[in-house]
Amino acid sequence: MAPASRMSSANFPLDPEGHTYHVGVKMGRVANRILTVGDPERAHRIAKSLDSKDFVFTSKRGFTTITGAYKGVPVSIVAIGMGTPMADMMVREIRATVEGPIQLIRFGSCGGIGTRSQVGLIAVAKDGAASVTRNNDFFAPMYAGNAPDESLSPYVISEACPADKEISEALVDALRKRIGDDSVITGMNATADSFYSSQGRLDPGFNDYNQDLIEAIRKRHPNCETLEMESFTLLHLARCASFVSKENSIRAAACAMIFADRKANDFIAPETVERLENDAGLAVLDALVACPF
Amino acid sequence: MAPASRMSSANFPLDPEGHTYHVGVKMGRVANRILTVGDPERAHRIAKSLDSKDFVFTSKRGFTTITGAYKGVPVSIVAIGMGTPMADMMVREIRATVEGPIQLIRFGSCGGIGTRSQVGLIAVAKDGAASVTRNNDFFAPMYAGNAPDESLSPYVISEACPADKEISEALVDALRKRIGDDSVITGMNATADSFYSSQGRLDPGFNDYNQDLIEAIRKRHPNCETLEMESFTLLHLARCASFVSKENSIRAAACAMIFADRKANDFIAPETVERLENDAGLAVLDALVACPF
Repeated sequence: MAPASRMSSANFPLDPEGHTYHVGVKMGRVANRILTVGDPERAHRIAKSLDSKDFVFTSKRGFTTITGAYKGVPVSIVAIGMGTPMADMMVREIRATVEGPIQLIRFGSCGGIGTRSQVGLIAVAKDGAASVTRNNDFFAPMYAGNAPDESLSPYVISEACPADKEISEALVDALRKRIGDDSVITGMNATADSFYSSQGRLDPGFNDYNQDLIEAIRKRHPNCETLEMESFTLLHLARCASFVSKENSIRAAACAMIFADRKANDFIAPETVERLENDAGLAVLDALVACPF
Repeated sequence: MAPASRMSSANFPLDPEGHTYHVGVKMGRVANRILTVGDPERAHRIAKSLDSKDFVFTSKRGFTTITGAYKGVPVSIVAIGMGTPMADMMVREIRATVEGPIQLIRFGSCGGIGTRSQVGLIAVAKDGAASVTRNNDFFAPMYAGNAPDESLSPYVISEACPADKEISEALVDALRKRIGDDSVITGMNATADSFYSSQGRLDPGFNDYNQDLIEAIRKRHPNCETLEMESFTLLHLARCASFVSKENSIRAAACAMIFADRKANDFIAPETVERLENDAGLAVLDALVACPF
């Protein structure tokens, strides 16, 4: 079914003017090449490199959309905040208000867990992403003061969802040109449903049973270099949309600045973030207009 | 381990002044009675009823914290945006910067799926909440163009996590006093990881295999009246924290305005939201200061 045929309903609510409920956009507002980031300030910073800004909107629910052109090609930059539910809302509401195929690139931030991860590098999830989710029922006996259900696993590590090959390669090429070969690594990403427990951070206030989680992720997916909170959902929903319809397919790729080295307990300096956002921001825009539909 | 003993680390990063990474608060900024909402405007609207506002802060990552007093008792109002990852960050970062036991009440918005749910009512999750999460591996064969893995369930419905009994009862009492007996229902909540797929919304752009999901939720938890995206995480982490430490326990309860009736395909009017936020906002503040520690 074409996006244009959707009706406002409890299934897919739109406001009386046809805007989606969370992102707050309507048909024609978003380009079919989309760069998505978490931080709205990052969106505005990258948007300074656009030829023009024809549409800028911040919704009440935490999404910022900027539509313009880069090298003459229509593009949108959408900031989604944090977490897979926000990524899910963005993909679905954008899919509902854009006609035809979509190309989507994420430019986020992450923690490094792999052998090649270092603070200040950019990791391209060329090999796709898996999800890491808390298995709530493992913890359920604790509600009544009992030990957790050791017959279950406390976390579920999913299969890998591939990224779009052509766009990922364009992304690696563009990043290498803008920030240098040594500043780009490739591998897999793991997308967690918590910044803390399902990323293996030990929190004395909670019994998270996650001491071995990072090791378990690396064992299941040995080329997993990074942990963050959105990429899997984008790649996953892109594949699901493409399964339904070639005409309304989504091709997605993801990269992220490594903000924390989880092995060395190292954190990025603010000036490095600023430099990366400028230089890598241009590279992701280059990649966004590189591939034909 | 007491919260004060936490050190900034890759496990629990704090900025050089001791502020948490996402909510952006440090020790002493947040009261041990906390009202949490999604919408920052709702937080500010409810905060007009406080005796005083001693601390107001909006973080770069989408959290707003207002600390003051209500009827002479220190309280905080924290807006967290949307989704369980945001709820998770809030509980953990608040737990890390508040000494001693915490009482937490959520005042959110939801969709109604139960027999008693109607638009404009307030539902108290007195019987607790379950989580409803997308089982990503069910969909994994679709990545390569194959049918999904029918040996798996497309969604996982968790066991119910109880709400705090005393605070839930105080919440029901306070709401009935402020908005009338007929405007308050009680039951269970289901907390979904998507506004769309795992809430049973049918989206023609994606094959979500969720046609029977609301029925399955009601079958598993017959007293489930509402669907939203945060309450389970608050109740769940409260129980997990209380399992670890009595001194640093968290007691939590949740209520939500019914914005959508999923059966009748009905949506709330903006003026009803405003009235409810005012009247029920006072009730949740009443409940927040009602129970002794």
